[in-house]
Amino acid sequence: MNRYSGFQTVRPKPHAVVIGGGFIGLETAENLVHRGFDVIVLEMGDQILAPLDQEMARVVEGYVERHGIRLALNDGVAEFKQAANDTLSVLTKSGKSHPADLVILALGVRPDTTLAKSAGLEIGKRGGIRVDEHMRTSNPDIFAVGDAVEVKDFVTGEWSLIALAGPANRQGRIAADVIAGRDSRFRGSQGTSVIGLFGAAAAWTGASEKTLKRLGDSDYEKVYLYPNSHAGYYPGARPMAMKVIFRKSDGRLLGAQALGEDNVDKRISAFAMALQMGATIYDLEEPELCYAPQFGSAKDPVNFAGMVAADVLRGDMPVSHWDSAEKGFLLDVREPVELSVENVPGAVNIPLGQLRARLGELPRDKEILVICRSGQRAYSAARILLQKGFKARNLAGGMLSRYHTLLLTN
Amino acid sequence: MNRYSGFQTVRPKPHAVVIGGGFIGLETAENLVHRGFDVIVLEMGDQILAPLDQEMARVVEGYVERHGIRLALNDGVAEFKQAANDTLSVLTKSGKSHPADLVILALGVRPDTTLAKSAGLEIGKRGGIRVDEHMRTSNPDIFAVGDAVEVKDFVTGEWSLIALAGPANRQGRIAADVIAGRDSRFRGSQGTSVIGLFGAAAAWTGASEKTLKRLGDSDYEKVYLYPNSHAGYYPGARPMAMKVIFRKSDGRLLGAQALGEDNVDKRISAFAMALQMGATIYDLEEPELCYAPQFGSAKDPVNFAGMVAADVLRGDMPVSHWDSAEKGFLLDVREPVELSVENVPGAVNIPLGQLRARLGELPRDKEILVICRSGQRAYSAARILLQKGFKARNLAGGMLSRYHTLLLTN
Repeated sequence: MNRYSGFQTVRPKPHAVVIGGGFIGLETAENLVHRGFDVIVLEMGDQILAPLDQEMARVVEGYVERHGIRLALNDGVAEFKQAANDTLSVLTKSGKSHPADLVILALGVRPDTTLAKSAGLEIGKRGGIRVDEHMRTSNPDIFAVGDAVEVKDFVTGEWSLIALAGPANRQGRIAADVIAGRDSRFRGSQGTSVIGLFGAAAAWTGASEKTLKRLGDSDYEKVYLYPNSHAGYYPGARPMAMKVIFRKSDGRLLGAQALGEDNVDKRISAFAMALQMGATIYDLEEPELCYAPQFGSAKDPVNFAGMVAADVLRGDMPVSHWDSAEKGFLLDVREPVELSVENVPGAVNIPLGQLRARLGELPRDKEILVICRSGQRAYSAARILLQKGFKARNLAGGMLSRYHTLLLTN
Repeated sequence: MNRYSGFQTVRPKPHAVVIGGGFIGLETAENLVHRGFDVIVLEMGDQILAPLDQEMARVVEGYVERHGIRLALNDGVAEFKQAANDTLSVLTKSGKSHPADLVILALGVRPDTTLAKSAGLEIGKRGGIRVDEHMRTSNPDIFAVGDAVEVKDFVTGEWSLIALAGPANRQGRIAADVIAGRDSRFRGSQGTSVIGLFGAAAAWTGASEKTLKRLGDSDYEKVYLYPNSHAGYYPGARPMAMKVIFRKSDGRLLGAQALGEDNVDKRISAFAMALQMGATIYDLEEPELCYAPQFGSAKDPVNFAGMVAADVLRGDMPVSHWDSAEKGFLLDVREPVELSVENVPGAVNIPLGQLRARLGELPRDKEILVICRSGQRAYSAARILLQKGFKARNLAGGMLSRYHTLLLTN
């Protein structure tokens, strides 16, 4: 076979505009990048992957941008215009114009309840068919399952629309059981999800922080951590970014979100199982998950999350977060060389090794928020300060939480 | 750089004899195969990987043999003899002689309790240092943790020696807590383990069937299943062999074992989390684990295991097992073409599609054990028979359970 490759011109990439930054939009965008397109994703919201908390979505956004997807957040389509050479122009609400050889609409799904309405069935406030825990509609002879029904959120108990295959499958079995005379009940949807993007995965289960905020629930705390996917001394370990949310009053696990390039789905599945079983963060400290150096760590990231969260709830390690860090006295315990790469304006720098000798430089009347790279040195520093009578908190997740779009390398 | 490669003779492979078929022995054997050795593993016991049940170990044995490791079970070392050319001969108890350029001893570990004994500490029957749930030895001022202590088995409550990094790590934290005045308690060891071999993994958690038998416990049932690692329509799915053991009286999960080439550790970690939380097989039906086609299935293998087991305990699908199948009337519902590849002597063949028309050929006074490839067609057949008033049971795991060393392809 002969291949003629002696002369080539550089052809401009064809342009694709993907409208919608959810699962389908991003998966399509990735495939178009692999296919050689210049791809832009338009998203009306202020983040991609709406179920994620925004700071975690930022990590995914940075990751897909480094892999060639351009993102236009807070912008929607105003008009499609016929342009030259059989191409389109996509005009946006903000007034921009994007050339498009191809446009993908991935705007999400809404229940088609026409049939249910014409049958006089009750429709819920979210627009889905209202069913009880037996999957029975307001007409006791009619059952409904799947994307068109509203389900109870497993964590919050709120009516929700959750268009996922797993719960739909389960609901079908439950409806069949009930029709056959059994007392099967749907326990509610956890909303566990995963999306693979350029070799990485983003996954989550349970309630997000923004859902809790929307419901006016402030009885929660959160931790951020950046564990390796497996033992660091074995080749191929990749860091993952993890956020775990739990009840402040009783430690109950409420939700977890994770992003990384290796075995993120494994950890979120373990969190999902824990959540289903009503686990607390103290329970997360205990399970023996699979460990050999290429598979995990003697302390698995899931255990690690439990330990960090338990440190907070037991009072061993008060935490604070970047979204409320402006008021505090900031102490950065990293080495000067690290500060030359990235630093927090206004933070006082005392490397951990010098801390005990330089306590006199720190205020006793203010809360000291301690910063390091990921939170580990800050833990030691905050323990020292607490034992010396200072008021100290660990800034959860350290610089990685501040700049964690920088975490996942290209 | 020049490489001289113009003339080569075929050199005989150097010989390695690995003594011991546990984690270290097998991992070393794999590496020696990659390094070009002819490798034989000598194992005194009747299987490799002693914590696995024997029929599951058989799958691993078939797999490593197809990847070039020779296994000699039920045989131990009698003598090492100096042979010609600075090599050894390894003489075995059965009278065989294996040439060896290299011998690896991987015979396992025993607690070195010399120090504990000289301190007058109580030693348990398994030979480890006896500690209470606070990791305190019989001398209240001395704590002990790690491979040298006996721990309670999480499932059976028996004293055990479990030389794993995860529990050791946890025990160290608990001892430190207790010394610092806290009431931390060790919940017991689940024995969760994983070993990677030639791209596959074998993993398990909780109690094995042979452990339950040794303890005289007959209040258990088991199921075998062979789910795909992810949705079958997405490339790269690999089957896994899975055994799940549960309490007959209340459905409590007791243990799980799995083998396969893709994401076995993820499923055993989910089982381990479930076990830690005291889950029943009914609980396994419910959790939403991560699903996208490249990561899992809408019914994850873990859910699937729960559903199969629940079918058994709810009485929808009585099961039987190959180890007690001789007495029954065997009905094979596969197609004739499948029987020409492998069949069970004495089994009557009626393909599933013909079953309703040929019920007259079946006995009403005997228990009918139904066979297919994996158990799915046998499920449908057994349901038909039960509804028609026959006594029928599904032979769990079908031909794959009978011949499941054939499952994992080379």
